[in-house]
Amino acid sequence: MAPATVTIASGAKWQDVAADRQRHRDATIAEVRPPVPELGPGDTPLNTTEIPKKLLTEEELRITGTDVEDLAKKIAAGEWSSTAVANAFLRRAGLAQKLSNCITELLPKRALDRAAELDRYLATNGKPVGPLHGIPISVKEHVGIKGEDLNAGFVAWVGRVSEEDALIVQYLSDAGAVIYARTTQPQTLMQIESVTNLYGTTVNPYNTTLTPGGSSGGEGALIALRGSVLGIGTDIGGSIRVPAANSGVFGFKPTSNRLPTSGWSAAMAGTESILAAIGPLSTSLEGARLFTKTILDQQPWLRQPSLVAMDWRDETQYFPDRKIRVGVMYDDGVVRPHPPVLRAVSKLVEKLKGSPNVEVVEWKPYKHDLAWAIIAKLYFVDGGADDKAQVEASGEPWLPLAKFILHENPFVESLTIPKLWSAALARDDYRTRYAELWNETAGTSPGGRPLDVILCPAAPGVAPKHETSRYWGYTSQWNLLDYPSIVFPAHDAVGAPEREAAYAYPDGYQPLSDPDKYVYDQWREHGAEGYRDAPISLQLVARRYDDEKLFRAMQILLEEAGLPAAVPA
Amino acid sequence: MAPATVTIASGAKWQDVAADRQRHRDATIAEVRPPVPELGPGDTPLNTTEIPKKLLTEEELRITGTDVEDLAKKIAAGEWSSTAVANAFLRRAGLAQKLSNCITELLPKRALDRAAELDRYLATNGKPVGPLHGIPISVKEHVGIKGEDLNAGFVAWVGRVSEEDALIVQYLSDAGAVIYARTTQPQTLMQIESVTNLYGTTVNPYNTTLTPGGSSGGEGALIALRGSVLGIGTDIGGSIRVPAANSGVFGFKPTSNRLPTSGWSAAMAGTESILAAIGPLSTSLEGARLFTKTILDQQPWLRQPSLVAMDWRDETQYFPDRKIRVGVMYDDGVVRPHPPVLRAVSKLVEKLKGSPNVEVVEWKPYKHDLAWAIIAKLYFVDGGADDKAQVEASGEPWLPLAKFILHENPFVESLTIPKLWSAALARDDYRTRYAELWNETAGTSPGGRPLDVILCPAAPGVAPKHETSRYWGYTSQWNLLDYPSIVFPAHDAVGAPEREAAYAYPDGYQPLSDPDKYVYDQWREHGAEGYRDAPISLQLVARRYDDEKLFRAMQILLEEAGLPAAVPA
Repeated sequence: MAPATVTIASGAKWQDVAADRQRHRDATIAEVRPPVPELGPGDTPLNTTEIPKKLLTEEELRITGTDVEDLAKKIAAGEWSSTAVANAFLRRAGLAQKLSNCITELLPKRALDRAAELDRYLATNGKPVGPLHGIPISVKEHVGIKGEDLNAGFVAWVGRVSEEDALIVQYLSDAGAVIYARTTQPQTLMQIESVTNLYGTTVNPYNTTLTPGGSSGGEGALIALRGSVLGIGTDIGGSIRVPAANSGVFGFKPTSNRLPTSGWSAAMAGTESILAAIGPLSTSLEGARLFTKTILDQQPWLRQPSLVAMDWRDETQYFPDRKIRVGVMYDDGVVRPHPPVLRAVSKLVEKLKGSPNVEVVEWKPYKHDLAWAIIAKLYFVDGGADDKAQVEASGEPWLPLAKFILHENPFVESLTIPKLWSAALARDDYRTRYAELWNETAGTSPGGRPLDVILCPAAPGVAPKHETSRYWGYTSQWNLLDYPSIVFPAHDAVGAPEREAAYAYPDGYQPLSDPDKYVYDQWREHGAEGYRDAPISLQLVARRYDDEKLFRAMQILLEEAGLPAAVPA
Repeated sequence: MAPATVTIASGAKWQDVAADRQRHRDATIAEVRPPVPELGPGDTPLNTTEIPKKLLTEEELRITGTDVEDLAKKIAAGEWSSTAVANAFLRRAGLAQKLSNCITELLPKRALDRAAELDRYLATNGKPVGPLHGIPISVKEHVGIKGEDLNAGFVAWVGRVSEEDALIVQYLSDAGAVIYARTTQPQTLMQIESVTNLYGTTVNPYNTTLTPGGSSGGEGALIALRGSVLGIGTDIGGSIRVPAANSGVFGFKPTSNRLPTSGWSAAMAGTESILAAIGPLSTSLEGARLFTKTILDQQPWLRQPSLVAMDWRDETQYFPDRKIRVGVMYDDGVVRPHPPVLRAVSKLVEKLKGSPNVEVVEWKPYKHDLAWAIIAKLYFVDGGADDKAQVEASGEPWLPLAKFILHENPFVESLTIPKLWSAALARDDYRTRYAELWNETAGTSPGGRPLDVILCPAAPGVAPKHETSRYWGYTSQWNLLDYPSIVFPAHDAVGAPEREAAYAYPDGYQPLSDPDKYVYDQWREHGAEGYRDAPISLQLVARRYDDEKLFRAMQILLEEAGLPAAVPA
């Protein structure tokens, strides 16, 4: 594409820049053939997830209803061409945009050119180019795509263009992936919803009064609608996992410095206090695993030296006897989760307790309020000056949750170097203490075996009402500790009337904290009806660098609980 | 030991604090039985390395003449008791203090109590407690020892006491090591010599007019005199490798965040811009390898979460056909090494070229002057304020090389957070560029094989005259890149008259840079005679995290060159 010409640098107003970006987005969608179906009257119910089934062809539904692992097999076997697959996903992604406002642009030319190339390769060589041959992958906008705009959600940055694909995109493409869609994110990237002045608000396909989460919220919504089965997100406080949770899909935040981040764009470049991670969202656990393994198998540390030179370690080596010790944390001691979430944890724990292989013990959260105080300070060690400058450079208005995290956050402070060091030491002390507590769990096991994983909520509730996602603690906790975590669908949703009794807070409940009161008030105000159809998701967490072990534990626990490892199409 | 009571905090003058520390040191040496031999007239020649042979018993010489790997075998086999071994090393270390001023204190009670316990264990169980059963290990002072002073070379810090052993000491002790001696370091730890106002100057056992290097210079001198065969050093710019090189022993700086640093003490705690590493100095390559493996086998990342959870990877998996591709860098393009060093590189390269297994190619240094500018800034991002405050808190005088690196260093600047981020990005860009260049070496190989290791000088000369160690570039380069490196003896020394012709600079030599002129002038002033008997050492470097591969490459290259992998006793 040609670089954007309507930019702040060229003298345009922020409103004009935004309008131009939206025109550009729509133009890319209009390139898709056959044209993306228009929505008719009645095509925008509260829950839009069934709409594609009405508007796409049978074959498109079969293709987009297939998860990564099976898609790869069918393409490699010649059952579907890469071109047919790319086109089906372009069409469904275009439709997803109309339903949830999740797209910044489609890349039909790039995708179809690449797909044709892959089809020729397969025809000529009789084998796929790599493990992701023909797999369409959607990409959060701030992860650079060669020749495309790279605004990271800032109006002021429109006009910046990537000279090459982000490193992760290069590795995925080399393995056969087809890059075809770019997705929305929030102003500053530091919101766990997805709204910018450029593209407006991305909504949750299961209930449009709710947020799909953020900052990788475009991915969440797009994958919920199966406009993608595999996408790239990024996460410094929950930005992969919150959208995955709100949208009922799988999301994996790896340990930092395992997957390559080079070529992404964000404010505060060069900060080392808390490292963001890049990782997959997918309709299947296996999609997320294959994504991760495919990149690590290419030794990305040889090109991005900040990465740890750690191969993907065969996950089947873990739990050879399938025995797993799970710590369960219902509540982080700061904010009590909404009743549907607590109920989902209980139900899963009950199922796991029925397995002879799973030992479930209680995990007591250690000062998660302190953890938030530490990480909230470390996010913005310049007092938020860089983020603020990027917003203000265009005159675009501050959006409520960006204001909340940057302007109304009591922990934001412009630090001197000595204060930065103290804050880093506080982080390290906290990490050490948490490690000690984890080590001590060996003492409560007859075999001296410490916990393998922690099972906990992914958020204090299901997808929140727009502009109410203020509590990051259930995900940011694991960023502070740099523990890998997977968010997974508990295969349950809010709203069946018979559950109302199970959805009550305890009688005379007194909130634990200000954030708890805020979350509690949301439930009091909206109740189950307000969150109707919202998927319920949970989170599984492992120790730092135990990424492969986490995948294996997730797989076994789902099997033991009798839950599928993929979202039903 | 009781904590120091003569301290700045108690109102003492710095001179009194220093005198008290020296009394304490001497008192610990005086506890050794039989008493450490006194030096007689004629026992302080320029080269003191033969003196112990005159003053210790035959058995003590046999014990202290044995390298780690054989010592472990003999103790495990009951040939020598841990007690006999500990006592021999206590005696030889006490003597080393008299010859080189390398000790801050001996720990005879701790060592002999532990040795007795180990002897009982072996007698009772018929097997050693761990792979280091009975191995005496010396420890640089700023690595904490329970109940002992922890001053890190600052007079103002005398009186600080460790509540427990540093984590690395715990792991080594659990594996059977006997901690018996603590060693000197320089003021601020940021000198590559070893002189403080507390203990004075540590001198090189091979030539007392020269420095053993620093900051782990006490270890270098002690091991050169075989008052230790294995010691703990630390390295942020060469502090393990410079002393190893100057003292003619093996020194290994691992990739950062592999070995545990928790429980050490230094100024600027909490900085993340350049990470220091902790590692071994030893009389043998195998001693250094066993040290590293023994710690990693205990999974130190479970207790220090900043460490990478990377097991020791069996080094014999590398180079199954013994074929190694070596890049050789004679000169870093900034400072030309003194003639004996260049000659040693040439000689080794000639030997390696004689091997069918070794391919030697040229490695062109990439802007090592820029590398120094980057790292010298990142060392002191607070403008050196913390180091300066610790020196000034006691009124102790500034020592020349501390002043050089902190006060006269043009790159030292007090950074704001945005400037800190820029400096970190400059570092990352440099690392990326170096990685690209390394990757590109695959293009010059018929098999597309990139370099395995780089062979280069360890320093611009052999051990320098006291107070002249101003050029860190040959070692700090690999700290900036965080590449593991081993310094090894080239089994050669300065001074045989027949070499004088080989020791000339090219006719009409014009220095490349100010640091080069300084180094060149040292040679012009002192010549070969001035550096008589100084050991010549070289350095082998691998890519980040290739620590195990580096050990294997080192072993094979020494074998191919026909050089021993240990210092002759």
